Order: sequence, then C-alpha cells, then structure tokens
Amino acid sequence: MSAENVAGQIGLVRRNIVRADQSSVQRLSGHGVATVHEAMGRTGLMKSYLRPIYGGAHLCGTAVTVLLHPGDNWMMHVAAEQIRPGDVVVAAVTADCTDGFFGDLLATSFRARGAVGLVIDGGCRDVFDLTAMKFPVFSRAVSAKGTIKATIGSVNVPIICAGALVSPGDVVIGDDDGVVVVPASAVHETAERAASRVANEEEKRKKLAAGVLGLDMYNMRESLTKAGLKYIDD
Amino acid sequence: MSAENVAGQIGLVRRNIVRADQSSVQRLSGHGVATVHEAMGRTGLMKSYLRPIYGGAHLCGTAVTVLLHPGDNWMMHVAAEQIRPGDVVVAAVTADCTDGFFGDLLATSFRARGAVGLVIDGGCRDVFDLTAMKFPVFSRAVSAKGTIKATIGSVNVPIICAGALVSPGDVVIGDDDGVVVVPASAVHETAERAASRVANEEEKRKKLAAGVLGLDMYNMRESLTKAGLKYIDD
Amino acid sequence: MSAENVAGQIGLVRRNIVRADQSSVQRLSGHGVATVHEAMGRTGLMKSYLRPIYGGAHLCGTAVTVLLHPGDNWMMHVAAEQIRPGDVVVAAVTADCTDGFFGDLLATSFRARGAVGLVIDGGCRDVFDLTAMKFPVFSRAVSAKGTIKATIGSVNVPIICAGALVSPGDVVIGDDDGVVVVPASAVHETAERAASRVANEEEKRKKLAAGVLGLDMYNMRESLTKAGLKYIDD
Amino acid sequence: MSAENVAGQIGLVRRNIVRADQSSVQRLSGHGVATVHEAMGRTGLMKSYLRPIYGGAHLCGTAVTVLLHPGDNWMMHVAAEQIRPGDVVVAAVTADCTDGFFGDLLATSFRARGAVGLVIDGGCRDVFDLTAMKFPVFSRAVSAKGTIKATIGSVNVPIICAGALVSPGDVVIGDDDGVVVVPASAVHETAERAASRVANEEEKRKKLAAGVLGLDMYNMRESLTKAGLKYIDD
Amino acid sequence: MSAENVAGQIGLVRRNIVRADQSSVQRLSGHGVATVHEAMGRTGLMKSYLRPIYGGAHLCGTAVTVLLHPGDNWMMHVAAEQIRPGDVVVAAVTADCTDGFFGDLLATSFRARGAVGLVIDGGCRDVFDLTAMKFPVFSRAVSAKGTIKATIGSVNVPIICAGALVSPGDVVIGDDDGVVVVPASAVHETAERAASRVANEEEKRKKLAAGVLGLDMYNMRESLTKAGLKYIDD
Amino acid sequence: MSAENVAGQIGLVRRNIVRADQSSVQRLSGHGVATVHEAMGRTGLMKSYLRPIYGGAHLCGTAVTVLLHPGDNWMMHVAAEQIRPGDVVVAAVTADCTDGFFGDLLATSFRARGAVGLVIDGGCRDVFDLTAMKFPVFSRAVSAKGTIKATIGSVNVPIICAGALVSPGDVVIGDDDGVVVVPASAVHETAERAASRVANEEEKRKKLAAGVLGLDMYNMRESLTKAGLKYIDD
Repeated sequence: MSAENVAGQIGLVRRNIVRADQSSVQRLSGHGVATVHEAMGRTGLMKSYLRPIYGGAHLCGTAVTVLLHPGDNWMMHVAAEQIRPGDVVVAAVTADCTDGFFGDLLATSFRARGAVGLVIDGGCRDVFDLTAMKFPVFSRAVSAKGTIKATIGSVNVPIICAGALVSPGDVVIGDDDGVVVVPASAVHETAERAASRVANEEEKRKKLAAGVLGLDMYNMRESLTKAGLKYIDD
Repeated sequence: MSAENVAGQIGLVRRNIVRADQSSVQRLSGHGVATVHEAMGRTGLMKSYLRPIYGGAHLCGTAVTVLLHPGDNWMMHVAAEQIRPGDVVVAAVTADCTDGFFGDLLATSFRARGAVGLVIDGGCRDVFDLTAMKFPVFSRAVSAKGTIKATIGSVNVPIICAGALVSPGDVVIGDDDGVVVVPASAVHETAERAASRVANEEEKRKKLAAGVLGLDMYNMRESLTKAGLKYIDD
Repeated sequence: MSAENVAGQIGLVRRNIVRADQSSVQRLSGHGVATVHEAMGRTGLMKSYLRPIYGGAHLCGTAVTVLLHPGDNWMMHVAAEQIRPGDVVVAAVTADCTDGFFGDLLATSFRARGAVGLVIDGGCRDVFDLTAMKFPVFSRAVSAKGTIKATIGSVNVPIICAGALVSPGDVVIGDDDGVVVVPASAVHETAERAASRVANEEEKRKKLAAGVLGLDMYNMRESLTKAGLKYIDD
Repeated sequence: MSAENVAGQIGLVRRNIVRADQSSVQRLSGHGVATVHEAMGRTGLMKSYLRPIYGGAHLCGTAVTVLLHPGDNWMMHVAAEQIRPGDVVVAAVTADCTDGFFGDLLATSFRARGAVGLVIDGGCRDVFDLTAMKFPVFSRAVSAKGTIKATIGSVNVPIICAGALVSPGDVVIGDDDGVVVVPASAVHETAERAASRVANEEEKRKKLAAGVLGLDMYNMRESLTKAGLKYIDD
Repeated sequence: MSAENVAGQIGLVRRNIVRADQSSVQRLSGHGVATVHEAMGRTGLMKSYLRPIYGGAHLCGTAVTVLLHPGDNWMMHVAAEQIRPGDVVVAAVTADCTDGFFGDLLATSFRARGAVGLVIDGGCRDVFDLTAMKFPVFSRAVSAKGTIKATIGSVNVPIICAGALVSPGDVVIGDDDGVVVVPASAVHETAERAASRVANEEEKRKKLAAGVLGLDMYNMRESLTKAGLKYIDD
Repeated sequence: MSAENVAGQIGLVRRNIVRADQSSVQRLSGHGVATVHEAMGRTGLMKSYLRPIYGGAHLCGTAVTVLLHPGDNWMMHVAAEQIRPGDVVVAAVTADCTDGFFGDLLATSFRARGAVGLVIDGGCRDVFDLTAMKFPVFSRAVSAKGTIKATIGSVNVPIICAGALVSPGDVVIGDDDGVVVVPASAVHETAERAASRVANEEEKRKKLAAGVLGLDMYNMRESLTKAGLKYIDD
C-alpha cells in the first residue's frame, strides 16, 4: 500500500480489483471464524464489538471496501455499482459513529448486485426486515437514525475496519464468533490449514468426550509442574 | 414547559393529561421506528443503547411518564394508577443506573391497567417471564438487582429518557431499531408523512430489486463528480 | 479466607473442596436468579455485563473456581480434572480481557466430567456449537480470539468474578437475568426463603392481575403522602 | 416548547431570544455547580461524561444553543453571529460523535463576539491553545479530527445536551464538578436558594471541622436505629 | 469471612476492628502502588477506572469499609464515627452509580476524625475544594449530583470495591497508578518484599541508564530464540 | 504490505528499517497533531481514547513498531535494541488490554537508546516517575498491573495501533489533541502542507479576533440560504 493511497485516499473508486480465487473462497466458507483465525496464526480478527444483527447470521465472500464519513452513507450507493456476485461489502467510518448507515433498501440493491452480506463498523437499521430477508449484517450498533448524502469517501481502497486492515478482494468471513479477514494471497494456504485443523480437532473431541483429560492428551502435567503448579489436598 | 416544572418537578403526579388522538396512534402503529423517525425530520429518537428484552418486541402507545431515583422504583406503583388502556410507561432515572426497576409483578399490574409496554432508561428483570407474557420492554440493561421504595419522584411530568424529551401523552414507538417519540400535536402530520414515505419506498424497492442502481435512481452521478469523486481503472 | 491465600494464591490447585449440599442445590435450582438474589438479602449478584451466550440458557451448580491470566486458558485444563458431576466452572481473569478462553472442545471435556455450565468474566467462542450442544455459558464477551497456555494461575481458590466473591463449593445460578452466588453455608436458608418468597409472589400476582393496585396492596398511600407526594388535576 | 419546534427544528436560527437577567447571572456565577444543582432541587445537571479541557476551567453565562450533525460544524459559524457578551455556546449533536467540532480559530471568533465559553456534547481540539487562551470548554472528548461544513442544523432552538434540556437564554454553569442548566425564569429563585445554602454550609463546616459528627449535627441516630442499623462490638 | 456476613451484611456497624500494625503501614507508605502490587504477587489491585481527583494524590492507611446504596450516602456519616487517625475510608456501592456521594463537608468531617483519604467505587464532587484541601480521593467519576439519606448499608464489613476484596483494617494504598489492598496479616511480609524489590530495581535502573539492554541484563536471548523469534535483515 | 507479513507476522524482528527523512521529521515536529491531520487530508489519526499520561506531553519521531500479547511485555525488551535516536516506540496488543506494559525501568532503557517517547494501545504505569522524567507516553489506560514475559510477538512489522496503520519508519506525532501517523513517503509533502496551513490560519485568526465573522470570511451566507437555513425574528 503506497503512501499516496493513504494520504489521498478520499474521493477514489477503484473499479478493477483483484478478488481472491473463488474456489478457495468456497473452501474457506465451510469453516468457522475461530478456525480460520487460528489457521491465520491468530491474525486478521476484527474487534469483538461487531455483532450479527440476528443469531446464526453467516457470510463469506470477497471484500468491496467503503470508507464513509460519520452520518453520511453516500458512498454505499457508489459501492453498490462495484459489487459482483459473491462480494461482501466492508464499510469503515472515519470516526466512531453508530448511525444507521444501512437498511432494507440498500440491502435489496446489494443483493440484486450479488452481494452476500455487509460488515460495517457503524450502525444498521431495518433489522426486522433484514432478518426476514436473511441478509447477514455484522455491525457495531443498531440504530434507526438515518444518514445524509453530502460527502464523498472512497470505494475499494484499503481500510481499517473494527481494528483490522481490509484490502479490496480479501476474503471476509463472519459468524456468531465475530469477523475475520484473510488477505487474498493467503486464502489458499489458510484453507489448507483450516481443513487440517478441523480434522485434528475431530479426533481431540472424541477423546475429550470419552473423558480423556486435556492434561493428558496434550501432555501438560510436566510443564505445569515445572511452571510451579502445586496441588493441595487439605 | 414552564421553568416551574423543571425546578419543582420532584414529588408531583399529574392526573389529567392530554393523550394523543387514538386514531392517529393507530395509524402510526403500523410503521416502524426508522420510518417514523424519518417522517419526524429525524428528531425524537432515543439513544441506541435502549434494546428490546426479546427479539421482535414492538410497542406503540401514549406516554405515561415516570421520574425515578437510582435504585428506587416506588414511583412505578404510583404510575400504575395513572395508566389507561393503550398507554406506554416511559421511565427516566435521575442518574445512570442499571438496577432491575421492573419485573413480572409490575408487568402484571401494568397490563391489568391496560399498558401496552414499558420504555425505561434503566434495568429490567424477570426477562424470561416477561418474554413468556409477551410484555414488550425496551431497557438499557437487564439486571436481577432489585430496588427499594424510599424516595418520591414524579409521574406525568416532562422527562428526558435516553436523550429524548418525552411529555405525558406523547406517542412512543419501539421496535428492533430503537425507540422514537412523537409529540402529541405532531402525531397526525407524522402519520401522514410516514404513510407517503412507505408508499414511496415501495416503488424504490422494486427498482432496486430489479438491479437499478441508487446512483441512477437518485441521479447522484453528477453531484458525485462535482464533489470530486474519481474512478480509477488500473 | 486467610491472607496467605490472597498473597500466595497463584499456582495452587485445591483438590478437596467442600461442595454445598446437593439436596439444597436441587431446591435452589427451581428458582430464578432474581428470586435467589432477593432471598439472599440482595447480595451475591455478579455485574450485569455477564450475559448468556444463547437465550434461555440456565445453570445451577457447585463452583469449581479458576483464576486465569489475560490471553491464557491453561488453567481451564487443570480445572477440568477437578470437576465433579453437578459442578459449574467459574473463571476470573487477573485483568479485563475479552479473549475467547473457552470453546466447544473444552465444553466437550467439561461435560464429560459432569459440568453443567460455565461462568467466565472473559470471552467465549464457538457459540454456534455451544448452543447446539446446549452447554450454558455466561460470559462478558463473545470473541473468536484464541488463547495460549503459558502461565499458571490457580484452581479452587476464592476468586472475585464480575464483582462477586466466589469460594469453591458455593452455589452459582445463572439465567436470563444474570448470575448469583450463594455461599455453601447459606444454601439451605436461601432455598427456604426463596420458596416462601415465590409462594408470597403468587398471591400478589393474582391480585395485581385482577386490577388491584400496588398502592393499595402494599398500603403505600399514606407513606407517599408523608413523603410529600402531591397530586395535580389541572 | 411547541411540537412544531421539535418536528421542524432543523434549519432554523432564532435571532431574538430572551436571555436570563444579567444581575441574577452575576449572582449565580459566584456559586459552584454542586451548589446550584442542589438549589435547583437536584434537576438540570448534564451527564458527568462532560469534562473541562483543563483543570480549574469555569464558566457561567446565558445559552446560545446549537444543534449540529455528526462530523459537521457548519452551524458553529452561524451561531457565532448570534453571540452577545456574556453568552455560553451550548452545542448538541444529533448523534454521538467525538469529532473535534471546535478549536482555537472558532474560540478566537467566539471570544471576539463576547462568549465566555463552550459546552459541547461532542469533541474539541487545539486543547493546548485553548488552555493558553484560558477559553473554558466542557466537552465529551478531545479529538484532533476535523469536521466538514455541509449540513444545516439550527441555532437557538431548545436542545438536549448531555441529557439536559437547554433553551436559548437559560443560564449554564460549568466547573470541575460538571455542568448545570438553570431555566431563565428560575434564575432569581435559584440564586437566592444557592446563597442561603452556602451560608448554611459554612456553619456546618465549622462544626464538622471541630469534630462534631454528622450523626449528631443532623440528628440521625434515632432514624438509623428505626431503620434497623445494629452496632456490633465483637 | 463467614456466610452469615455475606447473607446478612446489610445494616451492621462493626465498632471493634483490628487494624494492620501501624509501623508496617508506615513502611508500606513509602512505596508506590505498582511496587506493592508486585510485592503482593500481583494480587489485590483495584480496577484501573478508579482515578485520583487531582494529579499527585497519594494515600496509605487502614481501611474503614462502607457499603452504600446507589444514590444514598447515609452510611458515610455512620462511617465518620468509626474513623481513627490514619484510616482510609473505602466505599463500595451495591450497584454501579456515579453520583457524587462525597464532597467537602464530609471531607472536613473525615479529616477532623483523622482520615487520610477516601477510595470510592462511585462518584465524588466539590473537586475544586477537595483539591485545595489536599484531601486525596480515588473515585470512578466526578459528578455534582447529590445523594439522599434514606437506606441503611453497613460499616466495617468485608466489601468488594472496584473488583478487590477489602476487609476492615486492611491497608489501602493509592497513587497515580491506581489503588491496591494489602490484607492486614500480609502487611509485614509485603513491606519486606517491597523494600527488597526497590533495592533490586535501583541496580537495574543504573544499568539500563548506562545502555545495557534488558535482553542481556535478564538473559533473555536464549529463551527468545527457543520460543522461535527470528531476526530479519532485509 | 504482502500477505506473508500479515499471515506470518508473529515472531519476527526486522532490523533494517527505512526511517523517514530526519530533516522532514524536524519540520513536522513544529506542528500540532490537528494541523498535521488536516495536512494529511484527514487520515492517519489514532482513536481519541489514547491520552497523554501528563498534560503537555508531546512527541514526534520515527516509529519502531511492536506487537504485544495481552498481559505480556516481553517484546518491549526486544524492541529496545532496535531503537535509534529520534525513534518513537509504537506498541499494539493483539487484544484489548489495559495492563501496565511499560514503566520507569523500560523508559530508562528506551531513553538510553535514544527514544523520544512511547505510543501504546494498552496500559502504562509508574506515571509519577515518568512525569518526573518527562518521558512522554500516550496510552489507553494507566494501570499498576504488571505483565509477564512468556510469549513472542514481533518488532518492526506493520501494526494497527488504536485504529491506525503504522509501518516501521513512519512518523508519529502526539500532543494534547491525540496521535497521528504520517507514512514515511508522505512526510515531505505533509510538512509542506502543514506549513502553508499554519500561515493561512494566522491570517484567519487575526480577522476573527477583530470581529469578522466566519460567515463572511468564508462566504458561507449564500450556501447556507441555498441549503434552506431560515432566520426567525419573533
């Protein structure tokens, strides 16, 4: 990311972005956020204040990024035109703001363009309708407060959303545990690691369900003793 | 609102309040909070930290207002006597407090008097029972902590609840998007505006669902260019 | 609790703890948190930021306590070995931390040992799976962020969890209204009081449902007048 | 306050407002916020998250009110023209926003018009310069983030600022303890009460300094015993 | 701490408490909170939201504990009578509340009784006067809001204040870094450890000031390499 | 920034980083954070919760970045070795944590290496000593709580600190208004813009001090009328 982008990132719409490979996205979509986060070496997680607007909401797709100003959702309409099937719109705001930047009309438009969901570091409204539409949104707040259309931001520039860097084309995955970002170039390797992690966990789960202790399964007893752990029987 | 009310509002119960016209309330009740807030010129919205205690909770009615002290719900019993069918009790606290000022016993009493719900800038408890009763409550917290009955406040004086001014008799509407207040004298006009807004949105929704972009539907392209938006194709 | 425990409570696992009497636990389990809190003279309640990971989650059991360090869940595995059927694991962290200290693998292990749930003053992950398992967790956050296993804490020492003192063997009850702790030696008396409170409430509920006002049922009118309450009919 | 104001308060500037009587303002200015709040019957206090930008900041004057939008300080310039000597500008934002709506240039302008300070339910910047100028500001945040000038709000309409209703012309007092609003018509009476309260406190202070207990000075012992307080000497 | 105290701790005043040995208190008072916290094995620290009302505030003394109700400071007057020279009053509230429970009148009384300061998990007011008096207060908020005197709590029972257990007679130390509690029986040992820690730090400080790296002084290089740290010189 | 860095950024120390040109840093150091933020096109600002530990703290230097784990400050010692004169250490934590990661010993070491200050998205302690040393720190909290040295992070990788992307070698400026980051390659241009902005502001300040209104100086009257602003003289 060049300094030019950072210093002059307001007022740009990038039309030709490189999206992560769809087959890898497909493979990633079968994994939960916690698994993918681990497979990433515990990087890429957004802050936990982002919550799904309804229980069970789930999304996985390639990022179209949007940079908004507080109280202004003009760029959401600009972003709509850049959406391709399988995209997730990821929106940051230049200041903390819980206004309702997004509602059922925009969701109708986004879905018509092929979007599979929205991640927004701001507020969302029309939650009842969005839930009925099963349009997954991860937001920092729910608020009926509407926004204006007066100031330009940018579309498809790198943004920082809820503490994570998102570049256009990255893969974004959200479920009940939160939202994680996988850089486009790391998608293949992450999908591999996630799959082997899941396989590995299945074995562990069986042992634990049978009453085997993690203390024994992970051989922790010696290192605990070395660390100074003492058992008392009084 | 005279200064006398503000300076001496502790210890008063106003028995004869003017409620908003029921037919207008009826018309408003068909609209969501986001729609009504827009129809009000984006005024009257309570802070978004007020949340329904169960998903899908919805209420619309005329306000009986209560001013409570932290940790004390005595005036809720005084308010109960002032409730008439179709009322919503709206409670403010003189200091931020998340105690459980309201539970299933008071809900039973309020419902017996005809109340359709509660909005409280404080805590609520007995959420399991209230959900079973389908008694809608919008609160800032859920807390099992009980309250005492030692200090008098007021009933049916103007209050500020979650950042919004509520006068007795105003219409209060709550749904998943939040809570909005409509002054009694503005109910008719607001209902009109809300209805035309909904009609208008229906057309837009169809176009957007058909793939028409907001950029074109709202004729935004020229003003975006004027504002300096640039498209990049590299 | 001796000062030795407080000053040197890091690195200890107490294996022989005295659990509250199971028959009293059984009796308590039929009551809600709000009722038990009242029966305790309004003591023992944890802070209201602890929330169930799914609606309707409910637990009641004897505490196995854990003291964790931020970002480190090593002691959860040590705790697993100390669990007996009917226990609730109660975990505190030495600093505010929302990391996901607990997920479905640990839940599988805890359940295999007989645990009936978890209360944690930290984060939880794998919420989808935990919900499917119906394993009740009350936590301060949901976060996909994993933890390491590097630093020892303690198991079965007195801890302060979400503002409440919990000693190993105490009874911990959680439902939609929050989480309450009953000291092991107070369980019998608390169960008695809770039962009589419920009986008493049933009568009140009937009267209130019939339209009797709390003002009359509780004889409040005279004391309200004495306190200076004035009714205005203008 | 009529409903018309609330429903249509966006886009108005009221030029002829009635300010509280200057001699009463003068008398009030000698009292602290805590004293005035008590003299008001404990009403009119803004939320405690408003803090002075430097220790010892103090202001007392008549309110010129401003309603801003998040991220937009256009109306501050409109407000400047309405300032008369002795005024305090009181600014609310239609949504929670910590942007820096105010800095040293606006302070220079406000001071040139005679303003004695600012109360803003938003952010402030140029704190170093404002401190050097001794221009008192009470704000909810300090932030270097600038704002735009794109959307109109209102000047001299009733606003809700940090949880308190402020009408143009009311007296606003701020010190280390917070900010309080005195309705214009209550200024005279409040000043009287504040003065007698201060006189009264002086006597108490002397007694307490001499070691007299509040228990005796306020005759609390009997009522404490009645309330059930028990002394234990073990 | 027996269960009786917890279940029935409301309404008690314990007059004969055992205070920590004054010579040990004296020795502890020369150390900072961070040092004492380390000397305690990193236990006993209150939450970091407690802040001194003025920079440089410092206190060290034996605890007289108070349990208050939200919005009610009646027990502060009861506590005043229990104060002996060298005591610190430590006040908890049964619910989160930022009201101004304490001001300059109570400070005058407390000081006349010999108190050296206050720690309160609630609000404080009259900050200007308290600063002028140099009466140190550590509080969670500053608020002009007054409190009533209607409900009894307790004095000199064990309390949980800002996340830490405080028993009457314990030593409480506060400075710019926060507040820490030392159980009465651990005061001697903690003072010893603190002194040797300080001596030890002095040597380290000299080496570090001379440019020696912690990496070498603490012999960290090998363990870092073992942990997998890699240096890159591209 | 390549995906490799993000996916594998744990456990790396980059020794050869390109620092921003010192003469440009020098020029930037004369400007406040608000000015630089404006000169950057309003980008690069960290969240406003970062606060200086003492009033008037100010820093400007080239970034040595550190990625820490919650409760663990091991990498601060690794970072010390990478410091060159004029550097600012900028530390992010992989999870929100207010522990005291930094105190006077580390400050002594950092200063001996030539560091001019610290920006940390975590807690700081020994505030009294750091203030005496005049070692500027901008942190999200002050906490006496110590940290361990058990887990490796990274030094001199790109990090996200308080919502802003920081690459090693970037310029970081902090003052009472907050903290801003200038990418190394944008330093020259930003210094130019900041200088011309300051010159421009000086003229404005004089006019405003003379009583000229911003309404006239910025020619706002026409656009306000166009936007619908109405003046009322009743």
